[in-house]
Amino acid sequence: MAVVVQNIARADQAVIEGLGKCGVATVHEAQGRKGLLASYMRPIYSGMRVGASAVTISAAPCDNWMLHVAIEQVRRGDILVLAPTSPSDAGYFGDLLATSMQARGGVGLIIEAGVRDVRDLAEMNFPVWSRAVCAEGTVKETLGSVNVPIVCAGALINPGDVIVADDDGVCVVRRAEAEDVLVKALAREALEEEKRKRLASGELGLDMYNMRERLAEKGLKYV
Amino acid sequence: MAVVVQNIARADQAVIEGLGKCGVATVHEAQGRKGLLASYMRPIYSGMRVGASAVTISAAPCDNWMLHVAIEQVRRGDILVLAPTSPSDAGYFGDLLATSMQARGGVGLIIEAGVRDVRDLAEMNFPVWSRAVCAEGTVKETLGSVNVPIVCAGALINPGDVIVADDDGVCVVRRAEAEDVLVKALAREALEEEKRKRLASGELGLDMYNMRERLAEKGLKYV
Amino acid sequence: MAVVVQNIARADQAVIEGLGKCGVATVHEAQGRKGLLASYMRPIYSGMRVGASAVTISAAPCDNWMLHVAIEQVRRGDILVLAPTSPSDAGYFGDLLATSMQARGGVGLIIEAGVRDVRDLAEMNFPVWSRAVCAEGTVKETLGSVNVPIVCAGALINPGDVIVADDDGVCVVRRAEAEDVLVKALAREALEEEKRKRLASGELGLDMYNMRERLAEKGLKYV
Amino acid sequence: MAVVVQNIARADQAVIEGLGKCGVATVHEAQGRKGLLASYMRPIYSGMRVGASAVTISAAPCDNWMLHVAIEQVRRGDILVLAPTSPSDAGYFGDLLATSMQARGGVGLIIEAGVRDVRDLAEMNFPVWSRAVCAEGTVKETLGSVNVPIVCAGALINPGDVIVADDDGVCVVRRAEAEDVLVKALAREALEEEKRKRLASGELGLDMYNMRERLAEKGLKYV
Amino acid sequence: MAVVVQNIARADQAVIEGLGKCGVATVHEAQGRKGLLASYMRPIYSGMRVGASAVTISAAPCDNWMLHVAIEQVRRGDILVLAPTSPSDAGYFGDLLATSMQARGGVGLIIEAGVRDVRDLAEMNFPVWSRAVCAEGTVKETLGSVNVPIVCAGALINPGDVIVADDDGVCVVRRAEAEDVLVKALAREALEEEKRKRLASGELGLDMYNMRERLAEKGLKYV
Amino acid sequence: MAVVVQNIARADQAVIEGLGKCGVATVHEAQGRKGLLASYMRPIYSGMRVGASAVTISAAPCDNWMLHVAIEQVRRGDILVLAPTSPSDAGYFGDLLATSMQARGGVGLIIEAGVRDVRDLAEMNFPVWSRAVCAEGTVKETLGSVNVPIVCAGALINPGDVIVADDDGVCVVRRAEAEDVLVKALAREALEEEKRKRLASGELGLDMYNMRERLAEKGLKYV
Repeated sequence: MAVVVQNIARADQAVIEGLGKCGVATVHEAQGRKGLLASYMRPIYSGMRVGASAVTISAAPCDNWMLHVAIEQVRRGDILVLAPTSPSDAGYFGDLLATSMQARGGVGLIIEAGVRDVRDLAEMNFPVWSRAVCAEGTVKETLGSVNVPIVCAGALINPGDVIVADDDGVCVVRRAEAEDVLVKALAREALEEEKRKRLASGELGLDMYNMRERLAEKGLKYV
Repeated sequence: MAVVVQNIARADQAVIEGLGKCGVATVHEAQGRKGLLASYMRPIYSGMRVGASAVTISAAPCDNWMLHVAIEQVRRGDILVLAPTSPSDAGYFGDLLATSMQARGGVGLIIEAGVRDVRDLAEMNFPVWSRAVCAEGTVKETLGSVNVPIVCAGALINPGDVIVADDDGVCVVRRAEAEDVLVKALAREALEEEKRKRLASGELGLDMYNMRERLAEKGLKYV
Repeated sequence: MAVVVQNIARADQAVIEGLGKCGVATVHEAQGRKGLLASYMRPIYSGMRVGASAVTISAAPCDNWMLHVAIEQVRRGDILVLAPTSPSDAGYFGDLLATSMQARGGVGLIIEAGVRDVRDLAEMNFPVWSRAVCAEGTVKETLGSVNVPIVCAGALINPGDVIVADDDGVCVVRRAEAEDVLVKALAREALEEEKRKRLASGELGLDMYNMRERLAEKGLKYV
Repeated sequence: MAVVVQNIARADQAVIEGLGKCGVATVHEAQGRKGLLASYMRPIYSGMRVGASAVTISAAPCDNWMLHVAIEQVRRGDILVLAPTSPSDAGYFGDLLATSMQARGGVGLIIEAGVRDVRDLAEMNFPVWSRAVCAEGTVKETLGSVNVPIVCAGALINPGDVIVADDDGVCVVRRAEAEDVLVKALAREALEEEKRKRLASGELGLDMYNMRERLAEKGLKYV
Repeated sequence: MAVVVQNIARADQAVIEGLGKCGVATVHEAQGRKGLLASYMRPIYSGMRVGASAVTISAAPCDNWMLHVAIEQVRRGDILVLAPTSPSDAGYFGDLLATSMQARGGVGLIIEAGVRDVRDLAEMNFPVWSRAVCAEGTVKETLGSVNVPIVCAGALINPGDVIVADDDGVCVVRRAEAEDVLVKALAREALEEEKRKRLASGELGLDMYNMRERLAEKGLKYV
Repeated sequence: MAVVVQNIARADQAVIEGLGKCGVATVHEAQGRKGLLASYMRPIYSGMRVGASAVTISAAPCDNWMLHVAIEQVRRGDILVLAPTSPSDAGYFGDLLATSMQARGGVGLIIEAGVRDVRDLAEMNFPVWSRAVCAEGTVKETLGSVNVPIVCAGALINPGDVIVADDDGVCVVRRAEAEDVLVKALAREALEEEKRKRLASGELGLDMYNMRERLAEKGLKYV
């Protein structure tokens, strides 16, 4: 059954943006090492960083029809997250769709498939994380769904979940947990800043984390 | 049997360059979604764009002897296209061969194998699309052929076919169809420019392409 | 048995740096086409080039404890080389460990696994070659060893061997052979400079290398 | 947080077994082409066919501790479904755990990782679908969870969902939909038997499915 | 443009069957080491061996419509060879289509995509070489072509070319060369039988092939 | 430098055979979880089990010349272990070489590349573990070495090391450690037999291994 869910809840925009600034590695750790998408999801160019609210798309293989449907559901600060129902590396998305997204206030795309026009996308500063770059065109024949729970690159993503993505990959934060995760992520950042200074001064992690005793107990030998 | 075909027909140089400017995605669409090489063929650095006439090479695995033979057949505006007869990621090509290519007016390399000296190649602005980057050296022991039809990365390529390549990948256009494809590609570009403006103004693809009725017929439900 | 070998021999620092300047392709050729790591070991950003002395780490999968242990063994000019005992793409290493490495004079990391904080690592100019980029965290539960012989990406690496790495990949040079390989690499470089000039002037490799006769003997036909 | 959910609902055993007899392809079609696990999940030997109720396991990479915990939760007719929190091909499961499973009435294992002792497992007629066969051992250091929703090989699996697996792969059916899917699967089987007879008699699918008109409308040319 | 070419030339049936009996390795060698499909094309079960005339199919990704069209073109002794226009591992083919093929006298399938119902196919003794086994269903929406030249798994295949397949993989022989290749393959087989006897008696390949002198010339040292 | 080392030490034949009977998983565990080759090394058919002494081969890619050289060095009970110097899936080995091996008393092949004639090899009961099955032929142009240390599928293998291989994969045991490992492996087998009986009787691993307390300490919650 193909459905478009039109009214979805979103996390607080300040929380979403705050998570985006913390970055994937920090957010992933802060929420107990969960929510990462598979590491084959790569940015199409370097230096992008986003925090955004997911509009999800379940699409047929090599069929980008639902992208057009989904863009109507996009609000300022949203990111599209597409998973095909069967593996496909075809180029579902290019500069025209990105133009439409930017006109609607959309901020990026996460797609477990391919994209094209990557040079144009880079010039537009439109952030995309994908499994492939491929110029192969798609058709518009088969329905899919928008704003239903999907599994994308091994992670369950609900509409309205928060997506954090940067050069390290992509992470999803449950909408209901977003605020709590942000608090933990900020605390973690503060702590890391402190650690960074100590390590930069030459202190060893072995000492800073008090590892020597436990290493010895486990039986590590120095020869 | 190892042969070098010395006189091959080429498409018109203005047509070749015109196709190069249109880019892979547009050309691929304009010729009816055919001719793409597999998406594992990637540029060794970003921002390259070429349209060129193919000098083809069928080479033994891990043996780059035929590259030297092929360069003699290169004319201004040609690109080398190499497929090994058995899969190999060895580094067939580096800065010395690129120097020789540039001296002959050659404009790039498409290789379903590996290349090396990629930093030098980038500094020389020599465009390469390959399956791998690998410093592994090759031998010069086994003959191959130059300017025979080859299958490279899943696509049939004849000598004198037009190669279009950019950040989206690599596409081949049959020599006899090149002019016609260029006409269609330019028409497509004009059309896309019009669409881009409408989408940028906030118009939805759903409306611009009149999709709503067909979506409803197929049974899409909004909830 | 988990051990840390504390005193290892290193090659002469001038030799190590000289090899680094020659680059992977040249060094690999100079030592008889051996020592390359698998081509899936890629730099996390472009333009890095290092010559360094290996501090080796054999680590449990998804467990980065031994990295902390290893950093204590690092001297100025050393590079960490880590191989997991079972395949893992988890992110063993990030900006905090890189900070610690730089404080100790360490110059980089070769890891047959994943790293994270790659944007920070790029800003720090900290060179890394890895099999993956992945934000997935690791644990500190299982001992491994430091400065024992390891197999990393298909190559045997002993502590104190010289690592050469650049955009073409990673190569290992045996410590005892380092000086001899440098001599050969420099000779090769000189020779290549000469060849480069001749090729740039338009001379063909076919002539420069006297290939025509042997090609004819093997049966190459020109048609 | 590591939890073991002890009381989970299961589908009706007759329904579960009925689905198992229908097989993966039929069940997948009957439920609207959803629920398939990725095709890299392969049987470790041919000819196995199961329908069973899922006991799910979320486990650390290379750590099989939770398998021991999960077996206590297994009832007659259950199948274990394990997804690691980070990719791992290590051998989590072998003949001892299979012996324990059989003693508890468990009927198989679905694991997005590796197994070992496959010869013994085949002799025991213990069905396993895995991503890898690997003798690599695992540790027992890190907690995971049992009977929580997991994503295994790209599919969301809840405890108590029905698993259907055979030589074609693995499919999950939601517990609440199992009875309805069985009805549809049986109807489909009856229909296929009718089609099989007509096709065996030489009737063409083109005629049996009335495809000729639509093919002509779409523009298929016979030459 | 979607076309079905209805009248294609075929090689002599005795030649086709003779090539099938020689097997892939012998035929591949006999025709000068060309024509092999990529080694990821695997039999779905062991022990199959066919020689057959190709009916080729170019099909859309995840769309098996053209298989129905193609079966009408099949004559006794033909084999279907399908390449998708974009990579797909979906299950294009199962026991119903195999039933139809057998009713028409068709003898197998080569498909650079997925198949399902593999247990049934094995029981029917219907030979299939594929890239994947996958229960994922396909649609019937997009036209393709039948009996046009295709590139399948890296090899160019024309309608009416001879396909030889066994446990070693798949090889294509040009129709016009089939008879000549058979003669060479039979000669090769006779020669191998002679060699087999000598090797079985303990004679070394080093002596039988007179390799010692050339090894010494190349510089092989015995220590 | 290409060398053939003619006199190598071997482990005691009874020890070698004893290790073979213990199997890969047991031997791997008994020697402290080391020595496994990568899991992409698969048996070409099921049910093989060997313990044998390694004759190692370092060979050029797609070049099987050294196999002929190596067979002369084979004694009764030896197994060939081949690693190419650059990745290759070509078919280095077929039924003729297997005939020669059997005539010399050789008992199998481990090859990080391809083999062919797999049906014949199966009928000959000749055991092979390989990375690929591929009919692609090889050349005899480039020297390699026999009985030198090699890295095969990620593991260091010295001539005379003991190879254990079965359906779980391939494991190497250092010659000097073989006897000690056998003692540990046999002890492990005895222990496993005892455990198997307890598990078969319904006892849980949780109790047999006294895991409950440590699980609780780590914080596992039952709900």
